[in-house]
Amino acid sequence: MMKLYYAPGACSLADHIALLEVDAEFEAEAVDIRTKRTASGEDFRSINPKGYVPVLVLDDCEILTENIAVLDWIADRYPQLRRNGVLSRTRQLETLAFISTEIHRAFKPMWHGGAEAEKQKARETLAGLFAITATQMSGDYLFGGELTVADCYLFVMLRWAEKFGIAAPEPLLRLQWRMEQRPAVQAALAREEMHDALGRSASP
Amino acid sequence: MMKLYYAPGACSLADHIALLEVDAEFEAEAVDIRTKRTASGEDFRSINPKGYVPVLVLDDCEILTENIAVLDWIADRYPQLRRNGVLSRTRQLETLAFISTEIHRAFKPMWHGGAEAEKQKARETLAGLFAITATQMSGDYLFGGELTVADCYLFVMLRWAEKFGIAAPEPLLRLQWRMEQRPAVQAALAREEMHDALGRSASP
Repeated sequence: MMKLYYAPGACSLADHIALLEVDAEFEAEAVDIRTKRTASGEDFRSINPKGYVPVLVLDDCEILTENIAVLDWIADRYPQLRRNGVLSRTRQLETLAFISTEIHRAFKPMWHGGAEAEKQKARETLAGLFAITATQMSGDYLFGGELTVADCYLFVMLRWAEKFGIAAPEPLLRLQWRMEQRPAVQAALAREEMHDALGRSASP
Repeated sequence: MMKLYYAPGACSLADHIALLEVDAEFEAEAVDIRTKRTASGEDFRSINPKGYVPVLVLDDCEILTENIAVLDWIADRYPQLRRNGVLSRTRQLETLAFISTEIHRAFKPMWHGGAEAEKQKARETLAGLFAITATQMSGDYLFGGELTVADCYLFVMLRWAEKFGIAAPEPLLRLQWRMEQRPAVQAALAREEMHDALGRSASP
């Protein structure tokens, strides 16, 4: 059975949601990113020497890392989460790469106790990046009427924005709200928050 | 004909090398990332509103951005630059994502006039990331005996490391040297450096 290693609320929430959306058979185990221990007490670095989530262990024990690659793999395996149309995989990758290398990274000063000036600069950068994203939406979700893995990743970024008081544009807030209504999203959040409440949380 | 927009020495050098390696028919035009003007005087933001390179305009005028997506597209279009074997596209993406989101991003304080303490921290981070990369090499190149798009991207990172006095591990220095012997690499560097010498350069 597949196994997802996640940290509550981290970018691995995107993979958690995606796998629940497609009813994949998988286990999920939380990781404390600070101590590099999994919930069952394993040394996480023995699973991923890079020390970060997500990690997806496939049925044949191949270990996948890097959120862009894991989400692309999920969309390739489960077509219902995939963008369709011209250059579909390329366009989806382009959006995943933008979310990862621009949006996700821009949050860094917010998590790691940066100076207030740095945080303010990050807030402005993020507002600009979300504005660009909003102009690219082509329907209820990023790529039209159907959810894709890119929405799952963007949803995590929108939750972080909310947490840090960064105003996202209206179309993205609607996307966030829409996703919060989905049973798979609620189930992923419930599992991650329950774990969080047990005090084993980690910031991404 | 395809058209690549690049900034001399920036991460778009990876795409420049890759396209020359496969003898693709393409034009290349330099961009001044500071002024957002192309060499021919166009407003670069009208081509890519995000304002960064690489941009690859395809034969049918589709405009691709984000280095991970552009390199993945090149490898999909030109199989000789592609990793083969189990989970090939996923493993290649995993490496491209690691280079982009970890290595490339870690150089940020080096380019943008960060404080010396920040630069020192970045040097240490980068040394660790290059060490991880070196353990993953499975031959003369990252994925064995043949060049892939991932090597093209890594090569740019190794040039940056050299520029900033960051010591890369021996296997990566050998990879860098091996790439420097390739005619396509020499041709890409000659074109970018010639442009640079004309004073239109831009830091990545």
